[in-house]
Amino acid sequence: MTKVKFAVAGLGRIGKIHLNNLLQMDQVEVVAVMDPMEDCQEYARERNIPYITSTYGELLNSVEFDSVVICSPTNTHADYVEMAAKAGKHVFCEKPLDLSMQRVVEVLKVVEDTNTKLMLGFNRRFDKEFKKVRDLVGEGAIGKPHLVKITSRDPGAPPIGYIEKSGGLFLDMTIHDFDMARFVVGKEVEEVYAKGAVLVDEAIGKAGDIDTAVVTLTYTDGTMAVIDNSREAAYGYDQRIEVFGSKGMAQADNNFSDSHRLYNGQGIHGALPLHFFLERYAEAYKIEMADYVRSLVKEEAVPVDGKDGLYSLQIGLAAIKSLKEKRPICIDEIKL
Amino acid sequence: MTKVKFAVAGLGRIGKIHLNNLLQMDQVEVVAVMDPMEDCQEYARERNIPYITSTYGELLNSVEFDSVVICSPTNTHADYVEMAAKAGKHVFCEKPLDLSMQRVVEVLKVVEDTNTKLMLGFNRRFDKEFKKVRDLVGEGAIGKPHLVKITSRDPGAPPIGYIEKSGGLFLDMTIHDFDMARFVVGKEVEEVYAKGAVLVDEAIGKAGDIDTAVVTLTYTDGTMAVIDNSREAAYGYDQRIEVFGSKGMAQADNNFSDSHRLYNGQGIHGALPLHFFLERYAEAYKIEMADYVRSLVKEEAVPVDGKDGLYSLQIGLAAIKSLKEKRPICIDEIKL
Amino acid sequence: MTKVKFAVAGLGRIGKIHLNNLLQMDQVEVVAVMDPMEDCQEYARERNIPYITSTYGELLNSVEFDSVVICSPTNTHADYVEMAAKAGKHVFCEKPLDLSMQRVVEVLKVVEDTNTKLMLGFNRRFDKEFKKVRDLVGEGAIGKPHLVKITSRDPGAPPIGYIEKSGGLFLDMTIHDFDMARFVVGKEVEEVYAKGAVLVDEAIGKAGDIDTAVVTLTYTDGTMAVIDNSREAAYGYDQRIEVFGSKGMAQADNNFSDSHRLYNGQGIHGALPLHFFLERYAEAYKIEMADYVRSLVKEEAVPVDGKDGLYSLQIGLAAIKSLKEKRPICIDEIKL
Amino acid sequence: MTKVKFAVAGLGRIGKIHLNNLLQMDQVEVVAVMDPMEDCQEYARERNIPYITSTYGELLNSVEFDSVVICSPTNTHADYVEMAAKAGKHVFCEKPLDLSMQRVVEVLKVVEDTNTKLMLGFNRRFDKEFKKVRDLVGEGAIGKPHLVKITSRDPGAPPIGYIEKSGGLFLDMTIHDFDMARFVVGKEVEEVYAKGAVLVDEAIGKAGDIDTAVVTLTYTDGTMAVIDNSREAAYGYDQRIEVFGSKGMAQADNNFSDSHRLYNGQGIHGALPLHFFLERYAEAYKIEMADYVRSLVKEEAVPVDGKDGLYSLQIGLAAIKSLKEKRPICIDEIKL
Repeated sequence: MTKVKFAVAGLGRIGKIHLNNLLQMDQVEVVAVMDPMEDCQEYARERNIPYITSTYGELLNSVEFDSVVICSPTNTHADYVEMAAKAGKHVFCEKPLDLSMQRVVEVLKVVEDTNTKLMLGFNRRFDKEFKKVRDLVGEGAIGKPHLVKITSRDPGAPPIGYIEKSGGLFLDMTIHDFDMARFVVGKEVEEVYAKGAVLVDEAIGKAGDIDTAVVTLTYTDGTMAVIDNSREAAYGYDQRIEVFGSKGMAQADNNFSDSHRLYNGQGIHGALPLHFFLERYAEAYKIEMADYVRSLVKEEAVPVDGKDGLYSLQIGLAAIKSLKEKRPICIDEIKL
Repeated sequence: MTKVKFAVAGLGRIGKIHLNNLLQMDQVEVVAVMDPMEDCQEYARERNIPYITSTYGELLNSVEFDSVVICSPTNTHADYVEMAAKAGKHVFCEKPLDLSMQRVVEVLKVVEDTNTKLMLGFNRRFDKEFKKVRDLVGEGAIGKPHLVKITSRDPGAPPIGYIEKSGGLFLDMTIHDFDMARFVVGKEVEEVYAKGAVLVDEAIGKAGDIDTAVVTLTYTDGTMAVIDNSREAAYGYDQRIEVFGSKGMAQADNNFSDSHRLYNGQGIHGALPLHFFLERYAEAYKIEMADYVRSLVKEEAVPVDGKDGLYSLQIGLAAIKSLKEKRPICIDEIKL
Repeated sequence: MTKVKFAVAGLGRIGKIHLNNLLQMDQVEVVAVMDPMEDCQEYARERNIPYITSTYGELLNSVEFDSVVICSPTNTHADYVEMAAKAGKHVFCEKPLDLSMQRVVEVLKVVEDTNTKLMLGFNRRFDKEFKKVRDLVGEGAIGKPHLVKITSRDPGAPPIGYIEKSGGLFLDMTIHDFDMARFVVGKEVEEVYAKGAVLVDEAIGKAGDIDTAVVTLTYTDGTMAVIDNSREAAYGYDQRIEVFGSKGMAQADNNFSDSHRLYNGQGIHGALPLHFFLERYAEAYKIEMADYVRSLVKEEAVPVDGKDGLYSLQIGLAAIKSLKEKRPICIDEIKL
Repeated sequence: MTKVKFAVAGLGRIGKIHLNNLLQMDQVEVVAVMDPMEDCQEYARERNIPYITSTYGELLNSVEFDSVVICSPTNTHADYVEMAAKAGKHVFCEKPLDLSMQRVVEVLKVVEDTNTKLMLGFNRRFDKEFKKVRDLVGEGAIGKPHLVKITSRDPGAPPIGYIEKSGGLFLDMTIHDFDMARFVVGKEVEEVYAKGAVLVDEAIGKAGDIDTAVVTLTYTDGTMAVIDNSREAAYGYDQRIEVFGSKGMAQADNNFSDSHRLYNGQGIHGALPLHFFLERYAEAYKIEMADYVRSLVKEEAVPVDGKDGLYSLQIGLAAIKSLKEKRPICIDEIKL
């Protein structure tokens, strides 16, 4: 069997996860890693990666490979995808592609013209809980979906420095929920209404962002979704979904560290949800990458493509506009 | 012990519940019942009610009592309360008092001027599940409340005839949730944004109403609540609450017919929620009436007063306006 | 409608429950109460019971009624049932009838000869949770039952004085579980093996009893049940059942004060089980008495009869013998 | 870092699991595999194992390594452990060491004399659910343990051929539960009473075994454990534990394929438990092997040693004797 040759660009938290998952796949050979940081290069050396470099240009020019996994900072994504596509490489890119619709459209054009594949890292689609709900919806187990409810709360806010560059709550955090809202019922969003507040940390407000939000989405068929977010849930990472339809309801709950129940004089007590996305979505990251590799090997369409990124960005930009203008925003108002 | 003398006006489903609960209270003597229907009068006779009449005027003029419980059709509520207050009777009145803000204000003025008590039948406040969440919030168990989520779905839509006279989903059904949103965190609502759709039954749309809704409320402190409604949940009556705060989250689940779990080759199966409000809130109705009686005996303030009715109505009218004008409505826009 | 006339003998905790339940039944008229205690007589007077007396003989001789409910101390049960039967009254008697097999057989003979009805107060059979499991078993939902597991733990031990007269753990507490083991699968017990220990309170051991036990029952078809008991569960009254069969498993859980979940930094927390049998079985007591009244009105067999008491006693005596002789006891070893 | 050199003897289902887990450990180098089957050798070749052989003797003589993992058929365990110990190798051996107490004692003597390490594969000790319960017990969260309840049911019976050689239900299946009963409370067993039946498959009875059992264990301090087993649970692998103590109760539930809940007109439905031990204990196998490797690297005691195997075997033999002689068996009756 000829193996698919991979390079990984960026060995931060997510880059390391993808690297380790790739290293365990029989069909994959990781031939190169790019990261400017010495400790990340050391991390790659310990795993016997043949070629290690500091710059993306060198990566593209000096080694032969089939696909690159881009986990570098967000502001490099668009350029790196473009460069890879022009070099004929398939790309798995962490979300978001870019915070500008126009730039995303440009990049997608290049991908299309070069006939390369681009997969976006919406990892939650590969979570077994959410997938199960999507499958139940797909099988008609709840009839026609009427309402989608997504709860998505982080265990703690990131550093202010990160928030300032993140594009804000809607583009950094809720964007996963926007994608999930589309994915779980397979419908497109037509209108967005967003309410937000600074309730967790005033510094977030000073940085121009919000930390708590409720967003109502209306699908093109008039059905609705509602998302609630917080940057800080005292009890940990809260990731739940509920889809209500004409014949029933499907729910996915959090994943917990264990199933124990302790009964004592004060009540009944159980474990907290798994701490954060690295723990909750550990398995989803594996499946995500395996599915990407399969689409390369079988020369099939990738399960999450550039348009999925584009649409989520559009919803996110509509949410920002809605929050600012205090009115529901039709998705068509968000143009290139 | 001198007993508190009660009359019950209207022996429909709710009237019967209140009558039976009153009959079991040591401190209460039910001296009269008013209902124009023969079978309802028969129902009262079987319970040995001393005085039974067909008209409200006769009830007020012919028997001595301390308090009347008004369970007659909605369009009689305002007049009946006014008449009772003017006759010096305390009143327990099913919600809503009236669908017009102005009329409600007039009635409350009469109640105030006559120095009588008026309690509104927001029965869900007395449900042990919701009360527990309110108590946890009150004790600070979840810190400062940031988000309230209320799920409220009926097992099936009422007849179109009922819907036409009900004031619509927001004034008939969601009004309970508006009251709950205020009650559970003890905050007032400042802004309302409502989305709705006709997804259950086209006839409801033809009657000028909606059957599915998502309503976002903003409290005066900038925190938010979101309510989702459906007229028809295939799995029965769905009544859940979640309050998320700076230090945690409190949830109340549905009440189920039993706790059984059946494990077989197809999965794990459990019982459905209790069918509808008569079953789910049977105990709440008892506690509600007992609390009302206690406030009469102890000459204390009633637990739910006319202003609670007024505020919920105001939120409901704002929701109607929001749905119509497709924009968030500040509560102050809803004037008398 | 002619009402069934009832007398209640003994107004302790259980007697009061039965009295109040009877007072709410349309088909019942409570005509007399017997209790030697002044405060209990006062309790009856407040409820307008027409005839109140201190002695059982007077009760039988002075008032006309159809059925007596016997809630007096255990050592009076057998005599009182006999006297009532001879006087042609139907009897609802709290368990146990007597702690001696021989005496029970004598009493049942009198009941049979007088053609009166005798119902034993095995209240748990009327609990909706256990009834649901029994129904699932009866419908074949779990196929053929192979294993029954009963957990039955009290929130705290009764006073030593009570324990000394109770017949011990197996005849006082486990006897309910022995009845449940027969009821839930509709099978008879053939062999009993009991292990016990004094782990809660040494004083219980000094009184000649145990406070913790595991009892294995073998049914006549070779299938098995296991019961575990404790006199003191720190978290309250623990009453669960599980039946495992060829096609699945059915479980009944405890009933809790409410369904709330509190999520905070320490974990997820819920309410304790309802405190004790008065709370857990409040509804079961109502249904039990209603079912008894119905069997009188319809002249049908009572749902729990004297033989049910006899068999449970036999199993209990076998458990005592097993504990003492440290070996499994065939039920036939327990003769009259 | 010098790596610990490992050989794996036997590449059946469990052998493959251990091999793959070892291959992912940084501190481990797998230098050899022994298996007589061609397809197992091929499996090893695909994983680039340097030395592959058909015989255990060759394995010991031809390659240098520090530890062997023995996953060959049960009847080879004792000999293979002895041979390895005499060759100065540390051993991880799947349970059971042998079905004869005397043989086990001999082998343990050799291990002791050669100063090598021997770890027994009681994988369930490393399951996060059971470990959590053990930890709660260890921390005193439930006070003094009074009762242990272990439910352990397989999704389906193994082939009759396997059953005939397995030593029977108690030595093949319940032995894990005997070990768990000791582990979860850290106490030794003094007495065993076993009841069993053939309810799943008559062929199992013809093979001289049982398929359903209830075993009561008494610890040396008089507290008790009860285990229930079935070879066939229609709903899958059922592995639960409950420990009840003076201050509370700790429970561990099954692990399910996902957390979804589907509500429809028939009820509420959830996923089945993970199918069997390979799925349920996948993570436990990893932790088990990692703990073993750590004990080699740090030159510490292994977490499960030969005596743990010996004691479980003793309890199993007592259970067999109890079933046969229909009486409780003191553990001292089972001598070498």
